[in-house]
Amino acid sequence: MRATIMHAAGDVRIENVPDATIVEPTDAVVRVTRACICGSDLWPYRGMEPSEGGQSMGHEAIGVVEDIGADVRTLKRGDTVIMPFACSDGTCAFCKEHLYTACVHVAFFGNNGMMGAQAEAIRIPNADGTLFAIRQKIDDALMPAVLTLSDVMGTGHHAAVVAKVGPGKDVAVVGDGAVGLCGVIAAKRLGAERIIILGHHADRIALAREFGATDVVSERGPQAIGRVRQLTRGEGAHAVLECVGHGAAMATAIEITRSGGAVGRVGVPQDETMPASQPAFYRNITIGGGPAPVRAYIDELLPDILEGRIQPAKVFDRVVDLDGVPKGYREMNDRKSIKVMIRP
Amino acid sequence: MRATIMHAAGDVRIENVPDATIVEPTDAVVRVTRACICGSDLWPYRGMEPSEGGQSMGHEAIGVVEDIGADVRTLKRGDTVIMPFACSDGTCAFCKEHLYTACVHVAFFGNNGMMGAQAEAIRIPNADGTLFAIRQKIDDALMPAVLTLSDVMGTGHHAAVVAKVGPGKDVAVVGDGAVGLCGVIAAKRLGAERIIILGHHADRIALAREFGATDVVSERGPQAIGRVRQLTRGEGAHAVLECVGHGAAMATAIEITRSGGAVGRVGVPQDETMPASQPAFYRNITIGGGPAPVRAYIDELLPDILEGRIQPAKVFDRVVDLDGVPKGYREMNDRKSIKVMIRP
Repeated sequence: MRATIMHAAGDVRIENVPDATIVEPTDAVVRVTRACICGSDLWPYRGMEPSEGGQSMGHEAIGVVEDIGADVRTLKRGDTVIMPFACSDGTCAFCKEHLYTACVHVAFFGNNGMMGAQAEAIRIPNADGTLFAIRQKIDDALMPAVLTLSDVMGTGHHAAVVAKVGPGKDVAVVGDGAVGLCGVIAAKRLGAERIIILGHHADRIALAREFGATDVVSERGPQAIGRVRQLTRGEGAHAVLECVGHGAAMATAIEITRSGGAVGRVGVPQDETMPASQPAFYRNITIGGGPAPVRAYIDELLPDILEGRIQPAKVFDRVVDLDGVPKGYREMNDRKSIKVMIRP
Repeated sequence: MRATIMHAAGDVRIENVPDATIVEPTDAVVRVTRACICGSDLWPYRGMEPSEGGQSMGHEAIGVVEDIGADVRTLKRGDTVIMPFACSDGTCAFCKEHLYTACVHVAFFGNNGMMGAQAEAIRIPNADGTLFAIRQKIDDALMPAVLTLSDVMGTGHHAAVVAKVGPGKDVAVVGDGAVGLCGVIAAKRLGAERIIILGHHADRIALAREFGATDVVSERGPQAIGRVRQLTRGEGAHAVLECVGHGAAMATAIEITRSGGAVGRVGVPQDETMPASQPAFYRNITIGGGPAPVRAYIDELLPDILEGRIQPAKVFDRVVDLDGVPKGYREMNDRKSIKVMIRP
């Protein structure tokens, strides 16, 4: 079968790899109907050292179950499934608390030898615990939106939940990538009154406004901080969604948070330390977040997608087949595309 | 009147200073009946550069109102009052949310020109908002415990609240100083099942056990982390109270927190950055805390003190008069005393 392999920074290739097959009796094999390229895929795209054999890419997908192992109980061939970006056993203490990304058997697709989802098919370990089977009939036009539940929409929602977004709150979203844009959707959906997006790409800002952003701050650094304060009675935002992952974004996120407020961070942190420890402390700011337990959020978000109340699929502004994936990486990296959907 | 002035690291003197008097019509003057030395006073005691005129010390006190300004409405001469370590106006948006330490008029006793409480008397700005008047008659023997509500007990409680301590939770307390010990009291009071104290001073550990600690971890660094994990099914503690303030303590706090758990930090951070950003992220750990809004907690904690259910006064193992204050600093700094009470 064909799959996406990254060999070094900027070097993404579509290659023939061994077919996905059942290895453990708890596995399923899913034929990927839609996958996508994640903002976090751009970190290795910019910095990966050349590696022998390369790195299998992709951790977001929906598809159809093609095969199941002997011990799989809740799925059958032909089921349409959402594949969260991490696999989880569904039975450990953390899974029972719905923190699936802390599962004692957690494994991330495309990492540590697990194959990625930017491929024709993918092997799913712990299929019962990992996959979310969609039992209702869904119009194909809604499938791109359903795909966002495998990561980007669930991740934006996680940032909003951790930042304690709620009715009447002032919210700021740091980063206008696809996750930040889904953070805007989540903030609006959770009742935020003012939603300030920090970003400076015209196409993304336009989409943020469409999703419910009430204010745009295109300045950076101290200017951005001043502008957000100005928009929030000099206080800062109650809830701040950090959707970038580098230190400067985190510092801005902390500085624009109101005393007693919370930062929900979902940008994969690129630094070992966190900035602005003292400002965060003196203002009693809470900082939380991490890999979103997106599986936990599907039950809550899917109805809103199926009934058209939220339209996260708008973050996809390019659709490619597998051959188009290398170009998709290039365009996302060059900021020509917000997010690329793949139809293998 | 006489007051405590620090002139440089290690140089604490009792000096004659101008009497505390009403300056603003919203002021009160309080005769200090009991004050104390805080662990945070030891940071300048170890590192303060020599300064002209020195630094007035002390931010924890109880006392009796001696005088009030013309605009003071809720207090009268002779009232017994608790003086939280920060003054607050009681009317701003943050005070209404009970985050008094974020008051738009917040000021910290002994800082930025405000006189300190290790003195015969002290001027209290915004007296109506700042002081908590005790209306019931209290046995003098309970007054040391009441004094702890001005900072140390309220601060330990804040750490526990921010760390989301609750019934059945596993709690770890990093630091066996007076705040950490009050954190143990708070954790027990809030229903924690297992309370692990990290520390290695025999007298403090003994008191921690008396306050409800179920386990003691005297190792440091990786060994301490391993021990806490061993005590918590390999997972870490749900709630971790960071009561030290330096980077190594914070790194330990994060590493011993269970995935999805929370760190409540009240140790004054000595570093500009926070360590272990990536472990905190990958395990979805929440980090919060800061200067405790101790005034907000008095209503909840005072009855437990008056009825003897908690006995935070046991952290005081030395009592001195003003002349004894320099020795008190020395003994706390040398770890010969846990916390020194002052009867001016």
